[in-house]
Amino acid sequence: MAKPKKTPRPKAETPKGFRDYFGAEVTQRTEMLRTIAGVYHRYGFEALESSAVETVEALGKFLPDVDRPNAGVFAWQESEEEGAGDWMALRYDLTAPLARVYAQHSNDLPTPYRRYAMGPVWRNEKPGPGRYRQFYQCDADTVGSASMAADAEICAMLSDTLEGVGIPRGDYVVRVNNRKVLNGVLETMGLVDDDQRAAVLRTIDKFDKVGADGVSELLGKGRLDASGAFIDGVGLSEAQMRPVLEFIDYFNVVQDELSLEASRAYDEGNNDRGTQLDNARYAVSPEFKADPVAYDPDALNIWNTRVFDHLKRIVGNSVIGFQGIDELREIFELLGAQGYGADRIRIDPSVVRGLGYYTGPVFEAELTFEILDEKGRKRQFGSVAGGGRYDDLVARFTGQSVPSVGVSIGVDRLLAALREKGRIQAVEHGPVVVTVMDRDRMADYQAMVAELRNAGIRAEVYLGNPKNFGNQLKYADKRNSPVAVIEGGDEKANGVVQIKDLILGAQIAASATLEEWKERPGQYEVARSDLVAKVREILAGQAG
Amino acid sequence: MAKPKKTPRPKAETPKGFRDYFGAEVTQRTEMLRTIAGVYHRYGFEALESSAVETVEALGKFLPDVDRPNAGVFAWQESEEEGAGDWMALRYDLTAPLARVYAQHSNDLPTPYRRYAMGPVWRNEKPGPGRYRQFYQCDADTVGSASMAADAEICAMLSDTLEGVGIPRGDYVVRVNNRKVLNGVLETMGLVDDDQRAAVLRTIDKFDKVGADGVSELLGKGRLDASGAFIDGVGLSEAQMRPVLEFIDYFNVVQDELSLEASRAYDEGNNDRGTQLDNARYAVSPEFKADPVAYDPDALNIWNTRVFDHLKRIVGNSVIGFQGIDELREIFELLGAQGYGADRIRIDPSVVRGLGYYTGPVFEAELTFEILDEKGRKRQFGSVAGGGRYDDLVARFTGQSVPSVGVSIGVDRLLAALREKGRIQAVEHGPVVVTVMDRDRMADYQAMVAELRNAGIRAEVYLGNPKNFGNQLKYADKRNSPVAVIEGGDEKANGVVQIKDLILGAQIAASATLEEWKERPGQYEVARSDLVAKVREILAGQAG
Repeated sequence: MAKPKKTPRPKAETPKGFRDYFGAEVTQRTEMLRTIAGVYHRYGFEALESSAVETVEALGKFLPDVDRPNAGVFAWQESEEEGAGDWMALRYDLTAPLARVYAQHSNDLPTPYRRYAMGPVWRNEKPGPGRYRQFYQCDADTVGSASMAADAEICAMLSDTLEGVGIPRGDYVVRVNNRKVLNGVLETMGLVDDDQRAAVLRTIDKFDKVGADGVSELLGKGRLDASGAFIDGVGLSEAQMRPVLEFIDYFNVVQDELSLEASRAYDEGNNDRGTQLDNARYAVSPEFKADPVAYDPDALNIWNTRVFDHLKRIVGNSVIGFQGIDELREIFELLGAQGYGADRIRIDPSVVRGLGYYTGPVFEAELTFEILDEKGRKRQFGSVAGGGRYDDLVARFTGQSVPSVGVSIGVDRLLAALREKGRIQAVEHGPVVVTVMDRDRMADYQAMVAELRNAGIRAEVYLGNPKNFGNQLKYADKRNSPVAVIEGGDEKANGVVQIKDLILGAQIAASATLEEWKERPGQYEVARSDLVAKVREILAGQAG
Repeated sequence: MAKPKKTPRPKAETPKGFRDYFGAEVTQRTEMLRTIAGVYHRYGFEALESSAVETVEALGKFLPDVDRPNAGVFAWQESEEEGAGDWMALRYDLTAPLARVYAQHSNDLPTPYRRYAMGPVWRNEKPGPGRYRQFYQCDADTVGSASMAADAEICAMLSDTLEGVGIPRGDYVVRVNNRKVLNGVLETMGLVDDDQRAAVLRTIDKFDKVGADGVSELLGKGRLDASGAFIDGVGLSEAQMRPVLEFIDYFNVVQDELSLEASRAYDEGNNDRGTQLDNARYAVSPEFKADPVAYDPDALNIWNTRVFDHLKRIVGNSVIGFQGIDELREIFELLGAQGYGADRIRIDPSVVRGLGYYTGPVFEAELTFEILDEKGRKRQFGSVAGGGRYDDLVARFTGQSVPSVGVSIGVDRLLAALREKGRIQAVEHGPVVVTVMDRDRMADYQAMVAELRNAGIRAEVYLGNPKNFGNQLKYADKRNSPVAVIEGGDEKANGVVQIKDLILGAQIAASATLEEWKERPGQYEVARSDLVAKVREILAGQAG
């Protein structure tokens, strides 16, 4: 007789594109979120935790493909009895839910509403190496304020946050631009075709990577990239693209202008003026990071003013462009008054930010130190946070425009950066392990760990099969335990315990001779009553 | 000409059964999770964060309805190009994902593997008042240890955790039972029908609510409940149900037995023995909480031994029942050796725990203080955590049984309990608000908040339209701000600022006469340079 067919065992696998986080990966992220929340809170922002699930209707407009609710997000239909077949979806960011929350609760919320939110978001995208379908975001937004002071505040807070989590000043920079200025450039160029306008913005966004010549090629006929592939150009004439090229070349233009004026001032014997102009050049020069000068508000004001003047020369006939420059000026005046110099926050007309919904200032925090990529090549770490002003998200629900500005920090990238720089250890010490020499005396061993824990020391008793003592030490090793405690029958009879310094033991073992090894390096016999004191002493020595 | 039809605006609504959490609701939960994680960590447990999404295959067995993956969980099918139409789902607890993680990563994980996890879980159930479809769990499990020391440790840790978050000893109790003992009772009764066995367990679970008489009715012909509805009984004969009734009546049986023996001892002039037996009775008496005696291990040992003897008399012919009692005895010996008395953890044979997968010890933490329900009636707060031993979850994936034990804390219920008891405030003070008297001097106001924040004081500048000063004070009120700072043109000219103590102001305003009110109660004029010092002084006064 045939046996009944068994149900096959399920596969023990994370779904494709998802992953598990273990130990320090989790606790370090939690600690970082706590630090960030502390800064946000000090700035007056209130915590908000919306549910992970939203109606597709509420998220809808920003999905890549409105006809297929499944594209881009993880979505499902409510069973009929529950909600008449409504579509629901996992949130793909924290901004769309904020707009929904504000529209729903605006009567109960203060205006302006400063809120922060942190948690996972989900993207139904093709996973790739290091690209997961669930990841953390950590946002702060001010909803209901049109004041540029709100934008300036968020930039300042972003700077404070990065320093708060351990990125030193000089290793990051917050770069600020304004969509209105970019729109002014497009207006000046006379571009009306939406696809062409988008292509120009995408090209400006690449300035960091391809430089001015690359931008010129990409705006014109096209370009061979490093891999040898040909990238089609936007197809603009040289005359058409000129405003863009002058725009992204702002740095050299202003540097040259100041340099020339400085020479002239020195020639005229006006050395003070010459020094001042040189300081202005130096305030944002690439050498700034390597050799920071004391923050000089006057020098920075000169620099900023010259940049604004240059931008005005390009977009000044566009009302929107002029307004954008004015907004930038206001932001930098406020930041200057609070002492935020170009070593922390600076103007950068090449910042675009991809998201369609930004309507004013946009900004991006970049880590400026170099790391080695997978192929051993040096590259800058790059962007870890970004944001900007979006005035139309709440209007989707209410019909009324609600001016808002916010920032989102990519927590996992920021953690990776700190690990890269050795600021946090990827692996942490495990608990003290009390071994089990006599399974009938489990109560004794439990009493030891209770004593250790009450003294604030992380400790555990070995709970596997105690028969094989080697397995217990292997376990302690796998746990990365700093100390093992041993109490066999002889020790019990003599009122003592053996305490092994596993870190020191491993170090000595690496180089010990057989004779040295026999002397049980890093192992101490102490009175049972001295257990806690001796363990504490060893842990202090390891930390020191 | 007809206007083109507009897309209707989406509704700003949380999906049915979900909710948003604001401000202190979020930060207090975060703080509680941090405290709990601290205790778990000290016990040697490692953090694990698995993804919110699992394959339905991995979760499958525990779904209420295997033919309809959508029932009980939120599930959806991968689009073909991604994963060949696999079903995925949001996790409904943290235990099923743990079994998957352990099966997947067992080569890299230590054995036993102690892990904790905290985060939201989702249930596709009909929402009700106070019942949401997303809620937090906070679990700790030891995977791969068959030792009762693992179960004892989890019970001890649960007790430490409850005290750690602010539930004082005496306001909670961890009640412990063993499924094997319950199965022993069923065996003794000779019940073989699975439905009947389940019905008996469900009835035992109701002992707390309906008492011994209620259990007797429910096991027999049925019972009229408080609302007047008739609840069908299991239909057992009196002879059949006798073991259950004796079982749940353990408390009175043992109390009477000890009382009788104590009298006999006093009669025989053996006063020491009499006192000891009385203490044993007292060790777990209901009055214990109201008038706690010092923890007396001997008294407790006597009590526990008598309870085990009573249980053995009922189930002693069942091998599984006897084994269950033995396991309980081992757990309580270990707990006793660590000083956990019946004021914290006690035997309770009526604990069942609903979940099908428990195979050994089960336990439940209950808050014992009374609260008023919606109708103003007193009731005990009830269960906030539970867990037990489950030896078969990992075997689903690997075919090999992996003995495990774990606990899950209902974080939201625990928070509600602490709020109920006034241990944490539902509303917290907002930030200091610097008002805007002159919009052109925003930089001055920003400089003030920067000073306050640098001194560690939560502060913000008003970012709404500053035209109407009344709105600014209304805003400060809505934010629950403790202090407002005012610097108009006159103040600026004189180098001073006005500082309003909003808490004191509100108190005085409630009872002030017009004359008193005109004197601007709780408002101070100080030199601009004394801003931080004065604000700090006021905040300290409010806290004191």
